[in-house]
Amino acid sequence: MTVNEATRVSTATWLDSALGSGVRVFDLGRPLYRGMPQSPNHPPYWHTLPRRHGDMVRADGGSAAADHISLGTHVGTHIDAFSHVSHNGLMLGGVSAADAQRGGTMSSLGAETIKPMFHRGVLLDVPRALGLEECEPGYEITPDDLSRTAESQGVEVRQGDVVLIRSGWGKNFDKGNEVYTGHDSGVPGVGEAGAYWLAGHGVHAAGADTIAFERLAPGAGHSLLPAHRVLLVETGIHIIETMDLEELASAGAHQFLFVLSPLKLVGATGSPVRPLAVVPEVTP
Amino acid sequence: MTVNEATRVSTATWLDSALGSGVRVFDLGRPLYRGMPQSPNHPPYWHTLPRRHGDMVRADGGSAAADHISLGTHVGTHIDAFSHVSHNGLMLGGVSAADAQRGGTMSSLGAETIKPMFHRGVLLDVPRALGLEECEPGYEITPDDLSRTAESQGVEVRQGDVVLIRSGWGKNFDKGNEVYTGHDSGVPGVGEAGAYWLAGHGVHAAGADTIAFERLAPGAGHSLLPAHRVLLVETGIHIIETMDLEELASAGAHQFLFVLSPLKLVGATGSPVRPLAVVPEVTP
Amino acid sequence: MTVNEATRVSTATWLDSALGSGVRVFDLGRPLYRGMPQSPNHPPYWHTLPRRHGDMVRADGGSAAADHISLGTHVGTHIDAFSHVSHNGLMLGGVSAADAQRGGTMSSLGAETIKPMFHRGVLLDVPRALGLEECEPGYEITPDDLSRTAESQGVEVRQGDVVLIRSGWGKNFDKGNEVYTGHDSGVPGVGEAGAYWLAGHGVHAAGADTIAFERLAPGAGHSLLPAHRVLLVETGIHIIETMDLEELASAGAHQFLFVLSPLKLVGATGSPVRPLAVVPEVTP
Amino acid sequence: MTVNEATRVSTATWLDSALGSGVRVFDLGRPLYRGMPQSPNHPPYWHTLPRRHGDMVRADGGSAAADHISLGTHVGTHIDAFSHVSHNGLMLGGVSAADAQRGGTMSSLGAETIKPMFHRGVLLDVPRALGLEECEPGYEITPDDLSRTAESQGVEVRQGDVVLIRSGWGKNFDKGNEVYTGHDSGVPGVGEAGAYWLAGHGVHAAGADTIAFERLAPGAGHSLLPAHRVLLVETGIHIIETMDLEELASAGAHQFLFVLSPLKLVGATGSPVRPLAVVPEVTP
Repeated sequence: MTVNEATRVSTATWLDSALGSGVRVFDLGRPLYRGMPQSPNHPPYWHTLPRRHGDMVRADGGSAAADHISLGTHVGTHIDAFSHVSHNGLMLGGVSAADAQRGGTMSSLGAETIKPMFHRGVLLDVPRALGLEECEPGYEITPDDLSRTAESQGVEVRQGDVVLIRSGWGKNFDKGNEVYTGHDSGVPGVGEAGAYWLAGHGVHAAGADTIAFERLAPGAGHSLLPAHRVLLVETGIHIIETMDLEELASAGAHQFLFVLSPLKLVGATGSPVRPLAVVPEVTP
Repeated sequence: MTVNEATRVSTATWLDSALGSGVRVFDLGRPLYRGMPQSPNHPPYWHTLPRRHGDMVRADGGSAAADHISLGTHVGTHIDAFSHVSHNGLMLGGVSAADAQRGGTMSSLGAETIKPMFHRGVLLDVPRALGLEECEPGYEITPDDLSRTAESQGVEVRQGDVVLIRSGWGKNFDKGNEVYTGHDSGVPGVGEAGAYWLAGHGVHAAGADTIAFERLAPGAGHSLLPAHRVLLVETGIHIIETMDLEELASAGAHQFLFVLSPLKLVGATGSPVRPLAVVPEVTP
Repeated sequence: MTVNEATRVSTATWLDSALGSGVRVFDLGRPLYRGMPQSPNHPPYWHTLPRRHGDMVRADGGSAAADHISLGTHVGTHIDAFSHVSHNGLMLGGVSAADAQRGGTMSSLGAETIKPMFHRGVLLDVPRALGLEECEPGYEITPDDLSRTAESQGVEVRQGDVVLIRSGWGKNFDKGNEVYTGHDSGVPGVGEAGAYWLAGHGVHAAGADTIAFERLAPGAGHSLLPAHRVLLVETGIHIIETMDLEELASAGAHQFLFVLSPLKLVGATGSPVRPLAVVPEVTP
Repeated sequence: MTVNEATRVSTATWLDSALGSGVRVFDLGRPLYRGMPQSPNHPPYWHTLPRRHGDMVRADGGSAAADHISLGTHVGTHIDAFSHVSHNGLMLGGVSAADAQRGGTMSSLGAETIKPMFHRGVLLDVPRALGLEECEPGYEITPDDLSRTAESQGVEVRQGDVVLIRSGWGKNFDKGNEVYTGHDSGVPGVGEAGAYWLAGHGVHAAGADTIAFERLAPGAGHSLLPAHRVLLVETGIHIIETMDLEELASAGAHQFLFVLSPLKLVGATGSPVRPLAVVPEVTP
């Protein structure tokens, strides 16, 4: 027998513990549908059903329907690969963007290089800590805000964590594209300083409930994205955008198992994802 | 404070246990790239890089690249929604396929209804149990094969499990479309009887290392798919296809935490996924 | 020699006459670009350049760039195939729409069945005849308007003609999607009566400078399209939409050679086109 | 009255002559369908019918179906814009390819700059002149072949003509992608010398019944395309590919009115087209 008995037993024990009497899985992904809020800079999400039941019926009465989807990789809830952003022509680790993209596909730092995440996750619910319903449009979340939020929640941000920053802006997702993308109003989020705070804590990835993760100044659109530079180019921290953090926040779940499994889109600059936060079911 | 102290403590303890001294995450998803093996019945996967670094440079020297992807939802490693297959015009639970698809999107049983999975997973490595390198092309894996495999591996298939059936065919993925889809040769897999075996054990989902999950008879193509009928239409068991089970099998990992998080593609019949199998790191 | 001498000579003479001392070719097609006005009911026009010069350089220094386009067939200047519209389940000639579309492609009356047009064309410049700059939003162009326009222009509408109806609305194309599609304001055009007038004259095809050819009542959107029914379903007259008739009208060219060559998109319900109106150069 | 009486009369007379007792319109475009022969270097043509009759029925019983198409611009019968090819980084007129393509769309020499064609056309039926059924795979059509063909057909190639070169290879279109693209066998066509012959005659555009217009050496694929360089980069002569010249050749129509109206795809490197050859009907 090639089965490793020790491993098997150990896994079973661990599984019992991991699944326990049940877990609660929070779904942090937004639904994808035609007309959903997304950046106009990216190819629109478009789903159609080119094959329908009844088009072709098998001898035994079986039939199948099937889809076509067309989209940018930075639409819906998604993660940025390190090939997404460059600064003065260089990407993470000094890789030349011009070299990497020659040929029309990213030969370095593509989405296929993003490892699945099975990490400790921390939610920083900023408006709750600040006593607000939601952060103001265009508000820059400061390092002090982040520290105070962690403290008031009684959680510590550790090396290797995935930190999810709730601004409260996610409530605007259902109000449509114009409101959610906040082109005129601005959108709250961390700025350069907040990005360095995250990097200083050695986090593995960072996410938010907004379309661009970082603060967009009113009327400025995407004209400057310093936090992207800090995280993607300088320090190698993945960014997850357009997350749904409302249910997680309502449940007061501030630490959890964070699971993310991006599609291995070879040579792409990002991937749509459906992140999960997992906690044990608590029996009263 | 709204923080639930009891929950917080319990979660921390559980997290320590779940992450422990480290976990090993097996990646069961295939890479997606232009020209990868996929069924010719589905829209081809096509990735391009319409925006490149340098196309638009921000005042601070920042620039970004971005993609477009176009694909069917049943390409690459993917999961079938229950809206994928009908029998005599009816889908799971007797839902009328004609009604559900009217309007060009699935109003019932769409991919957005597939819950994230965080389940006990079991690998049934059939060729290893049968003493083969891989199952023959077109071989039908029988209930007896499944039972013997479970027994020889010392694992039990329980209610709620996700069962992954390795036929060994996955080694053909890198040999290109013609070989992997096995149109002429046939492809090994379970048939109707094997599907009922899975349903009889109350599994939550089932996956395989082939393009159609179930056995394709030599020369018969997709002319009959009885296991799809049993699982998707009759018993409500999701099917996961085109998985990479080689590393998992080589490691002899026969039970694990199975994690899957399909994209919430509203009204779609399936979703590309990157499934994970997680086990504790074993210290020697 | 297999050359038919008589044909050759005759063709040469005809060509001399057709080309004469030169012709003026009016371009009646709109440019296609990302963000152009189009109906939100149809897949958006999206052009990208996935391959660029320099991506691959041949041994001799040659290189090539190439595109991807994704679009509905009813975007930009386009022609409707008879398979586009049905009434009570039937298309032109009583063809069952359900039968024709089974399988996900039109097995009857598809765009590939539209013959190239090389016909006498007539422009009916309605606002000019009515002494207006342009027809009011939502104005229904009546049979009497059409007759008076033809008369005041000194042209006769004959059997087999392609009749282009200018409402003046085309000036709104450059004002963007919201204005041009006229969802709130309404859009001028013929109604059911005008369509019967066209059919009564035995025209071969009819076009207009608006997105839907026919009148859209203010606030009614595309809720009723009686002229489409009359022309496409009852009488077999193709419809051409989103034409640019401004230059033709400015030149006072009311009769011309009309040339149209739709793409043979097998099984499609329409095709993007670039229609031409040709007149001899007039030497003063 | 703003109508120019002189123009009107002149146009009517010219129209009578141009349409005469009827014209015969030869359709030189191939049908576009899923799976048609096309270069694997370009995005595949893919047509689907996302909206079907019955999906939405208007109050009066009307309903509509509509399509989505996705394709490269160099698939099916198509024309190359001058932005398609560069040599040592420069396009026609010394335009920098790198500059033109920055931003992901061609800012110079895009498909929207191709004027509609209403020109004298000449067919050079090479195999017929050479006494062959079709040119051999990989055969290079020489200047001498072109001159002899014109002479034997009794036609003269003049400045401004559109010259269509039949190699006979078009008969392979219906044999599928592998045969038609001729990757292994090679494909007949002009080479560098033939391209200079065309340029020396001052032709406006040139077309052929093959996928790449010019000769492809056996086994060499698209490794060198000297005729593209001569025509697109050096001399400004458009190239039309994948034409159907069989019916035209069978009819022995060696001169005709050539009509072409490419879609104005802004910033694209080519456009699908359906070219026409028009001759007067000959009454016996």
